[in-house]
Amino acid sequence: MSGEPLLRNPTVGYESLRVWALLLEYDGGPFVGWQRQAAGLAVQDVLERAAAHLSPTALPGSIVAGRTDAGVHAEAQVAQLALPETLGAAQVRDALNFHMKPHPVVVLRAAPAPAEWSARFSAVGRCYRYRILQRRARPALLAGRVWHLPHALDADAMQVAANSLLGRHDFSSFRASACQAKSPLRTLDRLQVTRHGDLVEITAEARSFLHHQVRNMVGTLALVGSGRWPPERVAAALAARDRRAAGPTAPAPGLCLVGVRYREDPFSPALR
Amino acid sequence: MSGEPLLRNPTVGYESLRVWALLLEYDGGPFVGWQRQAAGLAVQDVLERAAAHLSPTALPGSIVAGRTDAGVHAEAQVAQLALPETLGAAQVRDALNFHMKPHPVVVLRAAPAPAEWSARFSAVGRCYRYRILQRRARPALLAGRVWHLPHALDADAMQVAANSLLGRHDFSSFRASACQAKSPLRTLDRLQVTRHGDLVEITAEARSFLHHQVRNMVGTLALVGSGRWPPERVAAALAARDRRAAGPTAPAPGLCLVGVRYREDPFSPALR
Repeated sequence: MSGEPLLRNPTVGYESLRVWALLLEYDGGPFVGWQRQAAGLAVQDVLERAAAHLSPTALPGSIVAGRTDAGVHAEAQVAQLALPETLGAAQVRDALNFHMKPHPVVVLRAAPAPAEWSARFSAVGRCYRYRILQRRARPALLAGRVWHLPHALDADAMQVAANSLLGRHDFSSFRASACQAKSPLRTLDRLQVTRHGDLVEITAEARSFLHHQVRNMVGTLALVGSGRWPPERVAAALAARDRRAAGPTAPAPGLCLVGVRYREDPFSPALR
Repeated sequence: MSGEPLLRNPTVGYESLRVWALLLEYDGGPFVGWQRQAAGLAVQDVLERAAAHLSPTALPGSIVAGRTDAGVHAEAQVAQLALPETLGAAQVRDALNFHMKPHPVVVLRAAPAPAEWSARFSAVGRCYRYRILQRRARPALLAGRVWHLPHALDADAMQVAANSLLGRHDFSSFRASACQAKSPLRTLDRLQVTRHGDLVEITAEARSFLHHQVRNMVGTLALVGSGRWPPERVAAALAARDRRAAGPTAPAPGLCLVGVRYREDPFSPALR
């Protein structure tokens, strides 16, 4: 337990705050993304407005493990937020959930954060899942949750191509021009292509990703799966270190943040 | 192939029609159910209006294997519809899908129906899946797809209770008062309770079900799972042959028709 007061708002008075770790699930569809923007509602806005109901003196300033883009979902995003230390974990979870209604954002678990912990900088692994629905008919039940491609994909060829991206590389070819990371070097620990009926799922794990890296890798693998690129061309695209050498950015709705790893799980002892 | 003309609309002229078998997926959320009603849009309306674009002379009159209620979904509903025999299967599927936009209803496969085949009366098995999300936080990603219960369920106790409903019984205790079936006797072939993380899935299979039977069985099993009923009480509720002896009707959004079985699969050779 880290019980030190963290933030004081001198204009309203003193309130002892502590950092909370929050496990979040959200449907990214209606949002401009995690991060606050000039126009439109962000997931961050929904969370911080709910937090303001719990503690009028708390300054906003939530931080997350993965700043998901507009339309990208999360089954297990991890956020940190300063809230009064007098609240219990179940209270934090239930009260935030109450005030976030009716937005499709919920707190699955809340726990006082360990000392020195940061939702973003303490994370040692991020896991994303990308889903492609490959069939003629557009999605009805999975609308807004998948990328629809009206033709069959060769998942085996996609896996061969995916393997050439594993390990530590300069991923400039798969990096958005707006990416603010200092280095294009990243270590890709897992890039797995599996097929379940008409769904092709791509699971990507790394300590961290460049902006749009997962969607750019998926857009490129889809060229291979569709037979438009031989699998070897993906290694060549990587080696080019040029965004123009790789495929297009796969659409946001297929992407979901499914897990964040920390050396020490902030949620164990798990709260239900 | 059954190529006989089936319906002729004498006011418009002659057009040779054949019966088509259609495999449908739909999100039941926005609809009043499968069947046309005085108020609101039915899945049947969406399908038949699309069919009217393909054949202005075709008389409406689609028939389905399972007449799902308002809010109930289908991953694999089977419908029959008369359409011009000049159309190909891929054309039927793609043209219906085009005209059903933007409603969340799609044709996954289309095939000329075997002779004497009925989507409803030839079906020898229906399989439904019911999903309960058991956790404190309301659903964000599965909103409209599950029944949310904010407490843990004992899936093992639910399975013990479910086993007492297997086989041929008078299911009057689990039958909606509006049910129009002549007999309350049904043979329940499978009622399986499985747990995947926070999701409890109940799979029910029978040749046919009474109106609300699956949802009434689930509502009763949930009483067992929540510890409010001992598992044995479900057998007693069945024996009572009285709707008041069983539990409440579980909400529609958790239910999905996941399969229909025929002696001869109308979709093999499968169309993609």
